[in-house]
Amino acid sequence: MSLQEVFYPRAVAVIGSVAEGKLGYVLVRRLLEGGFKHIYAVNLKAQGVDQVSGFRSVQEINAAVDLAVIVSPAATVKSVMEDCGRAGVKAAVVITSGFAEAGNATGEEELKQMAQHYGIRFVGPNCAGILNMHHNLVVTLEALPPKGSITLVSQSGAVGGLVMSAARERGLGFSKFISYGNGADISVIELLRYFQDDPETRVVALYIENMKDGRVFIKTLQELTQEKPVVVIKSGRTGTGQRAALSHTGSMAGSDAVYDAALRESGALRVESIEEMLDLCQGFACLPPPKGRRLLIVTNSGGPGVMAADKAEEVGLEVAEPGPGLKEKLGAFLPSHAGMRNPVDLTVEGTAESYRRILVEALQEYDAALALYVGTPYLEAMPYAASIVEAAKESRKPVAASLAVGSDIPQSLQLLQEHGMPNFTSGERAVRVLGRMADYEKYRAGLRPLPPVPAALGSLPGEGPLLEPEAMQWLKENGLAVPEFCFAASRGEAVDSCRRLGYPVVMKVVSPEIIHKSDHGGVVLDIDGDTVAGEAFDRIREAARDKDFRGVVIYPMLKGGREVLLGLSRDPQFGPVVVFGLGGIYTEVLQDIALRVAPVDYDRAMEMIHSLKAFPLLKGIRGQKPADLKALADTMARFSRLPFLYPEVQEVDLNPVFVFPEGLVIGDARVICRRRSD
Amino acid sequence: MSLQEVFYPRAVAVIGSVAEGKLGYVLVRRLLEGGFKHIYAVNLKAQGVDQVSGFRSVQEINAAVDLAVIVSPAATVKSVMEDCGRAGVKAAVVITSGFAEAGNATGEEELKQMAQHYGIRFVGPNCAGILNMHHNLVVTLEALPPKGSITLVSQSGAVGGLVMSAARERGLGFSKFISYGNGADISVIELLRYFQDDPETRVVALYIENMKDGRVFIKTLQELTQEKPVVVIKSGRTGTGQRAALSHTGSMAGSDAVYDAALRESGALRVESIEEMLDLCQGFACLPPPKGRRLLIVTNSGGPGVMAADKAEEVGLEVAEPGPGLKEKLGAFLPSHAGMRNPVDLTVEGTAESYRRILVEALQEYDAALALYVGTPYLEAMPYAASIVEAAKESRKPVAASLAVGSDIPQSLQLLQEHGMPNFTSGERAVRVLGRMADYEKYRAGLRPLPPVPAALGSLPGEGPLLEPEAMQWLKENGLAVPEFCFAASRGEAVDSCRRLGYPVVMKVVSPEIIHKSDHGGVVLDIDGDTVAGEAFDRIREAARDKDFRGVVIYPMLKGGREVLLGLSRDPQFGPVVVFGLGGIYTEVLQDIALRVAPVDYDRAMEMIHSLKAFPLLKGIRGQKPADLKALADTMARFSRLPFLYPEVQEVDLNPVFVFPEGLVIGDARVICRRRSD
Repeated sequence: MSLQEVFYPRAVAVIGSVAEGKLGYVLVRRLLEGGFKHIYAVNLKAQGVDQVSGFRSVQEINAAVDLAVIVSPAATVKSVMEDCGRAGVKAAVVITSGFAEAGNATGEEELKQMAQHYGIRFVGPNCAGILNMHHNLVVTLEALPPKGSITLVSQSGAVGGLVMSAARERGLGFSKFISYGNGADISVIELLRYFQDDPETRVVALYIENMKDGRVFIKTLQELTQEKPVVVIKSGRTGTGQRAALSHTGSMAGSDAVYDAALRESGALRVESIEEMLDLCQGFACLPPPKGRRLLIVTNSGGPGVMAADKAEEVGLEVAEPGPGLKEKLGAFLPSHAGMRNPVDLTVEGTAESYRRILVEALQEYDAALALYVGTPYLEAMPYAASIVEAAKESRKPVAASLAVGSDIPQSLQLLQEHGMPNFTSGERAVRVLGRMADYEKYRAGLRPLPPVPAALGSLPGEGPLLEPEAMQWLKENGLAVPEFCFAASRGEAVDSCRRLGYPVVMKVVSPEIIHKSDHGGVVLDIDGDTVAGEAFDRIREAARDKDFRGVVIYPMLKGGREVLLGLSRDPQFGPVVVFGLGGIYTEVLQDIALRVAPVDYDRAMEMIHSLKAFPLLKGIRGQKPADLKALADTMARFSRLPFLYPEVQEVDLNPVFVFPEGLVIGDARVICRRRSD
Repeated sequence: MSLQEVFYPRAVAVIGSVAEGKLGYVLVRRLLEGGFKHIYAVNLKAQGVDQVSGFRSVQEINAAVDLAVIVSPAATVKSVMEDCGRAGVKAAVVITSGFAEAGNATGEEELKQMAQHYGIRFVGPNCAGILNMHHNLVVTLEALPPKGSITLVSQSGAVGGLVMSAARERGLGFSKFISYGNGADISVIELLRYFQDDPETRVVALYIENMKDGRVFIKTLQELTQEKPVVVIKSGRTGTGQRAALSHTGSMAGSDAVYDAALRESGALRVESIEEMLDLCQGFACLPPPKGRRLLIVTNSGGPGVMAADKAEEVGLEVAEPGPGLKEKLGAFLPSHAGMRNPVDLTVEGTAESYRRILVEALQEYDAALALYVGTPYLEAMPYAASIVEAAKESRKPVAASLAVGSDIPQSLQLLQEHGMPNFTSGERAVRVLGRMADYEKYRAGLRPLPPVPAALGSLPGEGPLLEPEAMQWLKENGLAVPEFCFAASRGEAVDSCRRLGYPVVMKVVSPEIIHKSDHGGVVLDIDGDTVAGEAFDRIREAARDKDFRGVVIYPMLKGGREVLLGLSRDPQFGPVVVFGLGGIYTEVLQDIALRVAPVDYDRAMEMIHSLKAFPLLKGIRGQKPADLKALADTMARFSRLPFLYPEVQEVDLNPVFVFPEGLVIGDARVICRRRSD
């Protein structure tokens, strides 16, 4: 079944005490005030509220109750669910807490099984309820925003309350709200899928602290963002925040860098504050999408124009001067001091009509406009608001308004709102919204499906690290460029191998007990003849005398090229993750790293390469030849498939990889396996 | 004279038309509404407004007019000033525009001379007026905030209007406002000095786009920040913003990086938005200063607590768990699920009394607290507000409140306000304020006066670049570590010099026409004997055959050590600026640079060294010996004095400087001189 019965029930039963002041009482009252008609109260005393009748059990109700709202004590919820099941209830919202979040995982599991037995889908437990403004369904204590097209999905009830309370103040309309709490049955993923097809939802706002099934989440989110913008707060960004989240939800968040990469990949727009979330939702809900990044700013005051121009550059919008044709048109009616620059500064002499004409003319050339108006307390802003509305209607391009100070600001903002136009608190906030909207359009235009996850191909031996020759052999079999190499278990074999490979060579110890080979005298470089080769073998064997010495691996000496690092690891939420950097100080000291959820395809690998701050070093500076970026991206794509082809792979480090002007070769490899059951 | 007559005039004359709807009319009405008593109108028709009498000239007024407010047309302002002068007026606010900002620099200069002639100090021209809430003096059309302790100094009138309008909405009290416009007479610097001693000003808010006299500005600002916090918006941060600022003020801003360094040095707190400016002003105006960075968060809801904890880590506040003693105290009255972590999460069961007790107990251990409360629309927030007020009074430490959603939020916020406590829109914004307040306290505690600017010591020849041996000699004379070197004009001299210095050596061309020596075959490295030395000389002379060849400079070959770069340049606003970095890709590609206004002393130089992202490379990684940071800081301090000792110095680059585990030596030097008159 879909979640239709959750959001569009025919009748609702509120189960729990409805004594005045009790949660059940307040919920019944709110349902009534919201205008919902078919409400029943269920409690031990069969007590009703006003025109709402009371029953002892849901089964006694002589009507088709689709949705049960459960607020009775935790210990009773299971049997309440049974009553609901017998009465043919299809869905429930379990507001009651005291389950997994309080250490009672068993109670939650039993509740889930009971619901499953009767085919009941439920929200919660431990949630703040739901809201469907298009069905007059108010099943929450949180503040009510006006009816509109934004849907909020929140892991935290209180954050939901804050968002809707702020939305109410702004007059910003919502379609649905759902606080999914512990998400024992209906998960955030299922909700995102549902809202993808919900015609009453135009924008999705999402608050999460942590989650399961990271990969399904990304995929679902990407499908959703193809249809609708999604604005996300993922809190627990820092160690302090994660500790706080752990203590109140009982689940670990995983690395924020991985969340961030995953959200970016899925096209969701991450924000950090509720204000920014609402600004962005307001932009998406009200403004047409910008087709490009060229922004015109019109203002009647210099300072606020400068601040908006600063922000525009920061978010990557172009505040370029008007072209010659437009300049001529504007010159026909603008005073000369307005300068026909961008921002167009009309000064205090700017009339409402000049705002309108500039916007209409300029929007034939620009992709979006910001109309800034700062008045004084004794002047009317209304004519300006009316002009801006008119220009926006005529141009059908996004016009973000920021009107402030005037004798009639409330009425002026009301006028904007009536025409579905947002007014932003400042030009900077408006510009930030236009920038993110342009980002979203660009993402959507260039959308590429996630690379398919390859099926398992083979298996690797046991647990722990592979020996280096094994690792190199395995990489070679998987199409990665490893250097020629030989394994040698004795001095004689070693000298023969060196000669066969051709001097100079490098020799490294092979032992399952030695990981940091250089630190243990296990590496000899630049071996240039048989005698040195024999001595090198002896020295390495001597250094490893207390270890499980298996022999040495020998390579031709590699030189030149740019050194990079490729890494694979597993994130608890998102699984395999691939990391790329220039290694050494670039990675360790400057933390100049690109990270993505694996696998990545060629294009994504190329984006990772370009995203490094030190990218110019790969491209070549001061006349250096560029490193072979194509070979590198190709290698990254192959490399990132390994943990799927070989599910035992826990961690891989290729460090360094030598990238030459043509081709590349892996200089060292560390491969760690896990047990299959992990 | 001080600016006392500007802000505390006995009587005010408004000069300009007072016909209804005219600027003069509105100003007289606002003065009246503000409660100011001694007002006169001066205009051609001798027209009055209500009880305010009209006169044809100021000289006709039979009272001591201290302040003239001039709104008459630009062409009349000079003669109005003369009238004022003859009448004994002491100060004026010239609101009229049409002077330097509109290309009429002559008119502004004449106005200035007229005022000087009569000893009149004036604000403007082209300004939005002034405000003194403690003297009922309303000489502006901008919105009126309540009376309080914040003073706003703004280059932009409109930004002033926005700030005060937003302050009015928050109920945030202001002491004075001044829009200084073109600042022809009374400059921002003089204003900052005045407010340093103004007992009615507790916090200064400052909006600037550009300025003159950067050095006096820093010094003045530093003196002010020793007494009072200063919150600054400096717009024109980006190229786009600077272009916008140029077009409406007619003056160039200079590099934002230099402004940023100067503001930091002076202890001012830079913010980017009006919201953040007001948040911070509110914190400083209302809360006691935090003595450290340990923050306790108490909340009744998890999600908002997590978001606040994230922000706390970002701004460098410590959200550590309570110590064992405090845990025991809290355990005595807290429910077990509150967990006694930090944030302390009381959940929906948290009572107002538990907020109070936690805050009082915790603030004996912590430096500051955030009290987060998110209610529902049917619950009262007032008991919580009352508890928070009580706890703050008892603890005398900063308690930032963020209360939201409730049946009585307006009244609850009113209660906070009555007790001088701010309520922040979100926990994150509150935390950001506490973080900046702690920054300010730390700055003030560690305050060091600016290093003295040394007097000119000598002079350098002519314009343009010095020859390298001259540059090295000059650096040596100024106590900087240059290598041994010889100048040689002939092959024979060159070989002799090489031998004297001891092989290996490096030889470089000396020619005023060759700047990039390597690019012109003008550098030969690793010369290891007489023959090679002679050939090197010939080769260099041959490569420079079309140039003004003077000879070669010879150094011992320098090797090892960490390479860094030191630079000096001149900023149009702030004068000499010193730059430090690791050179090469660190500077060019990664832009890892430290910049300060020169001169810097040893401690400041050391801070610059530590501020680089790549600092660990200097400190030594992987067992490397650390570079001699003391020698480096000492060199930087000496180096940064050069442009003061030698006023002809325009630009100096020492690149590279080799820093060894002991000592350092300059590898190459480029010194460019300017004409003395510059």
